[in-house]
Amino acid sequence: MKALKEKIQQDGKMLSESVLKVDAFLNHQIDPQLMKEIGEEFAERFQGQGITKILSIESSGIAPAVMTGLVMDVPVIFARKRKSLTLSDDLYTANVYSYTKHESNDISVSREFINSGDTILIMDDFLANGQAALGLIDIAQQSGAAIAGIGIVIEKGFQPGRKLIQERGIQVESLANIASLKNKEVSFFEEVDSK
Amino acid sequence: MKALKEKIQQDGKMLSESVLKVDAFLNHQIDPQLMKEIGEEFAERFQGQGITKILSIESSGIAPAVMTGLVMDVPVIFARKRKSLTLSDDLYTANVYSYTKHESNDISVSREFINSGDTILIMDDFLANGQAALGLIDIAQQSGAAIAGIGIVIEKGFQPGRKLIQERGIQVESLANIASLKNKEVSFFEEVDSK
Repeated sequence: MKALKEKIQQDGKMLSESVLKVDAFLNHQIDPQLMKEIGEEFAERFQGQGITKILSIESSGIAPAVMTGLVMDVPVIFARKRKSLTLSDDLYTANVYSYTKHESNDISVSREFINSGDTILIMDDFLANGQAALGLIDIAQQSGAAIAGIGIVIEKGFQPGRKLIQERGIQVESLANIASLKNKEVSFFEEVDSK
Repeated sequence: MKALKEKIQQDGKMLSESVLKVDAFLNHQIDPQLMKEIGEEFAERFQGQGITKILSIESSGIAPAVMTGLVMDVPVIFARKRKSLTLSDDLYTANVYSYTKHESNDISVSREFINSGDTILIMDDFLANGQAALGLIDIAQQSGAAIAGIGIVIEKGFQPGRKLIQERGIQVESLANIASLKNKEVSFFEEVDSK
């Protein structure tokens, strides 16, 4: 997705050879127009698959997921990273290790909102080691729902997330797939499979 | 806002005389079309005030704030509830006590994204005791920005949040202002000042 790659080139900050900071438009400050274009792109890539729900995770997955939900006209559920007092006890739960934060957290989704009749698009802002995505897959599978695929805004293609998901037979679509962050420069993999 | 009040009547759950659960459309499962209508309503209520940025807080403030940002064509910043490893050290910080979670957290916003040239609309999903809103006001004031007002999706008008904000001379606009949750029924205050 050209507009996204240009935004990464322009406003992304390479903190190291593995850390890209996109706080300027995706996960602290948000560019709503770009989010809408992202939603339109995901709706096109996953069209015709009968998607009934989008499943994402707080906090940075919410903005792109809600815009995709708006274009696709389906509800969005975001997994919670810890129980809140007003969240139901009747939960699907998965454990997710964060390599960024060096800690493990349970993520939860109320059983009320997804079930075996659903076809789910899983979405997140980043794919790197794939741990959050695998947790969301686990939750979707606990519900008995079908998984249409995984939509990722920015993939760090030099890390193993995609491989771990594709091994489970699940389609991954990322809108910008980073090949390298070396020498404070970002380079992208060519898109060959995607429209 | 009629569509929102109907949604609360239909899908909200009264867990007690002070707790309304709106996990079905606002803060766990999200209704993107309703969020868009909410964005249009806030854009109308705060039009002509020269707003340059929307400031909200993770996680449940993000969806309505991003839709409002889309309609108003301004960036959205969401305050973080704890520091992440990739968040800058150069932060505005305020301490916020949550009566729901019975704990106190620092909330933070990178200094990079708001400054004295900004006119800020503060937004959140709920207004009850006003602690999160006061924290966001504190952060906006640290930056030297002007505050256009506070946009709240659901206000618990029987709690003191509005009074605490108005005492600081700041306009509050809520789209549904709850008078009571007694006897498992929700009733709303009449809107007199708003369109």
